[in-house]
Amino acid sequence: MKEINLDYAAAAPVDSVVLDAMLPFFTEYYGNPSSGHKLGEKPRKALEEARKNVALLIGAQPAEIIFTASASEANNLAIKGIVKAGKKKGNHIIASSIEHFSVLNQLKTLQKEGFTVTLLPVDRYGIVNPDHLAAEITDKTILVSIQLANPEIGTIQPIDQLTALTREKGIPFHTDAAAAAGWIPIDVDKMGIDLLTMAGDQFYGPKGSGALYVRRGVRVSPIIEGGIQEKGLRAGTENVALAVGLGEAARLAYEAMPERPNKIVAIRDKLKESLFESIPQLHLNGHPEKRLPHNLNISVEFVEGEALLMRLEMAGIYVSSGSSCTSQALKSSHVLTAIGVPPELAQGSLLLTLGVESNVEDIPYITDKLAQVSELLRNMSPLYHKYLKEGNNNARVQ
Amino acid sequence: MKEINLDYAAAAPVDSVVLDAMLPFFTEYYGNPSSGHKLGEKPRKALEEARKNVALLIGAQPAEIIFTASASEANNLAIKGIVKAGKKKGNHIIASSIEHFSVLNQLKTLQKEGFTVTLLPVDRYGIVNPDHLAAEITDKTILVSIQLANPEIGTIQPIDQLTALTREKGIPFHTDAAAAAGWIPIDVDKMGIDLLTMAGDQFYGPKGSGALYVRRGVRVSPIIEGGIQEKGLRAGTENVALAVGLGEAARLAYEAMPERPNKIVAIRDKLKESLFESIPQLHLNGHPEKRLPHNLNISVEFVEGEALLMRLEMAGIYVSSGSSCTSQALKSSHVLTAIGVPPELAQGSLLLTLGVESNVEDIPYITDKLAQVSELLRNMSPLYHKYLKEGNNNARVQ
Repeated sequence: MKEINLDYAAAAPVDSVVLDAMLPFFTEYYGNPSSGHKLGEKPRKALEEARKNVALLIGAQPAEIIFTASASEANNLAIKGIVKAGKKKGNHIIASSIEHFSVLNQLKTLQKEGFTVTLLPVDRYGIVNPDHLAAEITDKTILVSIQLANPEIGTIQPIDQLTALTREKGIPFHTDAAAAAGWIPIDVDKMGIDLLTMAGDQFYGPKGSGALYVRRGVRVSPIIEGGIQEKGLRAGTENVALAVGLGEAARLAYEAMPERPNKIVAIRDKLKESLFESIPQLHLNGHPEKRLPHNLNISVEFVEGEALLMRLEMAGIYVSSGSSCTSQALKSSHVLTAIGVPPELAQGSLLLTLGVESNVEDIPYITDKLAQVSELLRNMSPLYHKYLKEGNNNARVQ
Repeated sequence: MKEINLDYAAAAPVDSVVLDAMLPFFTEYYGNPSSGHKLGEKPRKALEEARKNVALLIGAQPAEIIFTASASEANNLAIKGIVKAGKKKGNHIIASSIEHFSVLNQLKTLQKEGFTVTLLPVDRYGIVNPDHLAAEITDKTILVSIQLANPEIGTIQPIDQLTALTREKGIPFHTDAAAAAGWIPIDVDKMGIDLLTMAGDQFYGPKGSGALYVRRGVRVSPIIEGGIQEKGLRAGTENVALAVGLGEAARLAYEAMPERPNKIVAIRDKLKESLFESIPQLHLNGHPEKRLPHNLNISVEFVEGEALLMRLEMAGIYVSSGSSCTSQALKSSHVLTAIGVPPELAQGSLLLTLGVESNVEDIPYITDKLAQVSELLRNMSPLYHKYLKEGNNNARVQ
């Protein structure tokens, strides 16, 4: 049976070039970078070479890169680290309402500990209005954390308009770029970003490889304390192989910019066009242009997403109903709610994420199958029959 | 030139069987275990199989194993997690004075935050006296953290005598078993352990693979918040390949118990005997019997450790002067200080750790070289010449 992965944001295979770069560090050059003797030399050099490559992808200096084991860890290090180091200055944190749970859940905990948290609203596309941010900044604000792009609806924030506001007040600005890094050009200096989260597995590096960029001079406290690795910001023997994998994936992404994303945009747009031509009452979630190259989020009206997923899986098409971190836990997405998607459309949402393996040849098959199962499921829906008779009350302008 | 690694505790190659088990999860079975569709199935099953193998090694239930990216992270999760979840009950923490820095440095931070920390003394072998623990437990004690074995001097604690004391008071007992797991038999139930830290890279698993055992019913708060992975105790996409590596390494260690450690003990003891026969004024650090199979820690009197390391490296012998987490940072070991090794002996200390590749054939070469460089360096030492004339004031009973 044909198998088509349209859920690359959940997981993608490690690039074979990346894996080849990693392999020697499991067995041959297995030394500890902190060792004073010869066995530590190659691993130490490889680690610093990886740091250079990661820095290059986002226009940073190598010394500003802290390797972590995930974007979630980087988000926790950024927020807990800034808050702990800066709590004498104030107790107010601002974030957007569509942040990843590795940001939002921390903020809930910090609220319980006495911090004041402001979650900024977003517009119907998921964009934060800089005026809203400006209005919420106070003398007590010690951190603003707004993602570069949303992993679910793909919307890219006008980040430099936001950082301009924090910069003039000297407030650290953190951005979760887990979904964006490797896919859109990033320059932390031009963009005015002080802390930035990356996830290697989002651009063909290995799972468990992440990094936090911390601008020189920005004070952060560690969450994993112990040895002096990573400038004392993250204790534990350096995971050389995975850092090398992250570095190599970063190098490849940097070199492939903008050809790789552009190629995928073209396929994504053709897929979108094909789906919207073939399936009535389909709704796009997120911004039509300001979105990640590989992201397509749609709501199939009158259909329950889980049923859709199951039917598509039977046809060999793998998609997601949202973030894989929450898909087993929550039914309705906080992101879709925040952009005003009504519950009945939110529950029929599909997150399609493309990868380098995606191709235009699969589009007719995907379109046919999604059209078929949508029709099949809609025919079971009383609401759909009512709509056919009376017209649609959920109509949204695309 | 001959190359002999006697610093396996700093880093060891990943077992080829372990690496083979990991490889498919980078590329072929690359799915996200949290995905609802087919691509998540194999990774999810592999993750749970790995959890079973890790649990088996320490006599735990699979559901009690939380995968982490290092022993340092596991130590931080254990201590911060218990303290955060239990701070309403009290503010007193007890540990030994020879814990790893990933325990001690956290405790320093907690002290600044208002917690009371008691560091128990150890005897000349590094052993904690259960009476000392009993005397320090108060109504406010919320955690006792004492390592199972010390990574530097190899000393194994009488853990069941210690846990008997906390158990009757209902105080969680955490043990850092990073150096011990995979090397000595562990049964968390029989030993009365509530939380236990493991490091995959200490028994031929990959770097960056660790785990924390949390006994069912013991309440811990996460340090990396976000998604619901690892029962909500550690957010972030599961690192399937590394978890599989840890599981496979645990399985192999379990199956090789006690043959593998016994074989290494035999080599270690022959090496020790050979060194002590050939080199005068050599001192053993740590317990003569109650020590890790692969650990040998000696002080070469009248010699500066760093000079010794460099000369040995020139002869292709790689050793360490102590924990690789601190070797670049600190000159004198807090562990050797705690067991009463005088500074002049502590600075001439060598940590030799053996691995499965170690063999008796190398012993004469190691002995010759260490004897040669010791003699060479001693001849440069005025203290040595004074000793030859007057006799040794540092004499210690072995």
